[in-house]
Amino acid sequence: MYGLIGAIRATAGDRDTLMAALASRSVGMPGNEVYLIAADANDPDLVWVTESWRSREAHQASLSLPAVREAIARARPVIAGFDSQVETVPLPAPETPGTQRI
Amino acid sequence: MYGLIGAIRATAGDRDTLMAALASRSVGMPGNEVYLIAADANDPDLVWVTESWRSREAHQASLSLPAVREAIARARPVIAGFDSQVETVPLPAPETPGTQRI
Repeated sequence: MYGLIGAIRATAGDRDTLMAALASRSVGMPGNEVYLIAADANDPDLVWVTESWRSREAHQASLSLPAVREAIARARPVIAGFDSQVETVPLPAPETPGTQRI
Repeated sequence: MYGLIGAIRATAGDRDTLMAALASRSVGMPGNEVYLIAADANDPDLVWVTESWRSREAHQASLSLPAVREAIARARPVIAGFDSQVETVPLPAPETPGTQRI
């Protein structure tokens, strides 16, 4: 498994735009188990993204998907910087009855 | 929505025990959308827990579930401290076809 937890700083007042751009990439990425986008509850410009992938390669491959490239292009103008980013090794998501892994 | 991202420091050499204890709480918590447990890839004692709940109340209610109380009791002896914890407002998980929310 391969994971990331990043704190992305939006340009002032543009957090919603950034989150919408990030959300547009998060559906249908093969090998992805979690792509959670969350606003910091106390810092108005900070967005947290928690990712869990079945492999580093699956994450790497996602970066060349057209939808992901478009989302990154939409996000870039409203990113002021990256406050932090850590690599992790997540536990696999518990099997959810009735779901099929893509 | 209500979320948490926490960095929990295990007592030296006990990270696997801590992660197993945390994992034992993570199944079947009403109102929970994400409970991701991940080992820091570079710090051998650090565990990251990312949580997403449909409400603060759902999270609060989970703390009185027997399985959660047991898990916390199992985890407590191998917790050395909390490096950080932030509250977040996550985006809801995109509808996953074929899953039923509890």
